[in-house]
Amino acid sequence: MLLKHTVYIITGANRGFGKAIAETIASKVNQNRISFILVGRDQSQLESVKFDDNKFITCHYIANADFKGAKEAQVSVIDKISSLIKAWQENDTAPITNAVLINNAGSTGDLSKTVGDYDASEIQDYVDLNITSYISMVTGFIKLFNNGLINTTIVNISSLLAVEAFPNWALYATGKSARDMLLKVVTKEEPSIRTLSYAPGPLNNEMQQHVRETLGDQEQKQLYTKMADEGNLVDMKDSASRLYQLLAEDKFESGSHVDYYDLE
Amino acid sequence: MLLKHTVYIITGANRGFGKAIAETIASKVNQNRISFILVGRDQSQLESVKFDDNKFITCHYIANADFKGAKEAQVSVIDKISSLIKAWQENDTAPITNAVLINNAGSTGDLSKTVGDYDASEIQDYVDLNITSYISMVTGFIKLFNNGLINTTIVNISSLLAVEAFPNWALYATGKSARDMLLKVVTKEEPSIRTLSYAPGPLNNEMQQHVRETLGDQEQKQLYTKMADEGNLVDMKDSASRLYQLLAEDKFESGSHVDYYDLE
Repeated sequence: MLLKHTVYIITGANRGFGKAIAETIASKVNQNRISFILVGRDQSQLESVKFDDNKFITCHYIANADFKGAKEAQVSVIDKISSLIKAWQENDTAPITNAVLINNAGSTGDLSKTVGDYDASEIQDYVDLNITSYISMVTGFIKLFNNGLINTTIVNISSLLAVEAFPNWALYATGKSARDMLLKVVTKEEPSIRTLSYAPGPLNNEMQQHVRETLGDQEQKQLYTKMADEGNLVDMKDSASRLYQLLAEDKFESGSHVDYYDLE
Repeated sequence: MLLKHTVYIITGANRGFGKAIAETIASKVNQNRISFILVGRDQSQLESVKFDDNKFITCHYIANADFKGAKEAQVSVIDKISSLIKAWQENDTAPITNAVLINNAGSTGDLSKTVGDYDASEIQDYVDLNITSYISMVTGFIKLFNNGLINTTIVNISSLLAVEAFPNWALYATGKSARDMLLKVVTKEEPSIRTLSYAPGPLNNEMQQHVRETLGDQEQKQLYTKMADEGNLVDMKDSASRLYQLLAEDKFESGSHVDYYDLE
């Protein structure tokens, strides 16, 4: 039987939930090979995520990821993954049996604003980073790995906002909705590709703190503040574990949107 | 009582469904003032849509609309609408009581392709045209008209694809889903703004012919071809009339997605 060799490509892996996902996956490794390709902007932050004491894990870093547009994402990330894979093949590394893209990178947009407040350049920047680059990553991943020999999975780190609208989240909700839909179509086109949009819940992390500090809508702000004060925000490790479990059990409906709170 | 003066801004108005919408609205005018601002790329095509024989209607054209990005949409369309409105005010024209933005402009993307076939530049171009520019138009419209004195309505010409995924429509579905979601958030932020995502049905027009000629998925291709052969595609005037009726009766749920086939 072929030894399993799973490649996990995780974007925004240098901190927050992306980092928590990598650490959770690493903690579960069991006699199978794992290669991480961790993608982020900051090299030193990125390289602080490492698993040197585990002989089953190798870790590669793609720093200076540029998600300012489709071409930028391809050149700064996909082309580099492609080179990495080619180098592995030449060095006769164990063949890849599974490839998982976890698209976690993203931004919230300016949550103090409503749609009438945006200016053109922030709209352009937001969409380039959160939608255009994301599509480019998904396309690039499919081109690289969907060759009939590798089990491929694409995970979009999504949000409740992808399916329910709230004030002050227009760019974010628009982006998450677009991202979910892209994977639904991929699933229809390529039934062999497993796709999942996973909403991790309101995580107890820097991003959530930023949300509480900047959100213009008072009702939501109070809700999140109350959750934070009462310790009811979701621990990143718990949420990452549920995502890992979903992927490991492989029972989720491909193309679906699954929320942390849906799972027990 | 104030005389009603409705401004309709229609993008992609030079042909197809955009033109049909303008003609339908014009055919219903009844003792109220209508100002059209018709937006498109081709000046001569655009100016062929005219209603000179109706004293209640004035028609303005914004040609050379550039939807290659947020800034481009603002400069080539929104800034020009702003100048137009200022000129009206200076000339003491009847004050605007209602403003309706009908965001019809858009493209299908290359329907012969699946997600793994896209190249970075077509992803960038598609998103810029169909999402980024669209958000910029909505933001610009709100800035111009949402002043508490004017009844404002934003219509997104949507699609079944915004809510149901089919193969070979990834860019289109992603775009339509994003567009629907943006309006849902606008509705939550500004309850006074009426928003509607209207799916016009499979229209009997050039775009549908192009779909039948280029669609890579054979099952859908056969379905559309059968509909065309049997005369079951939707007449543009019928669909435009239903949209007009929705807007005139003003009973739709703001933020909702309404399909031609939902209506009788």
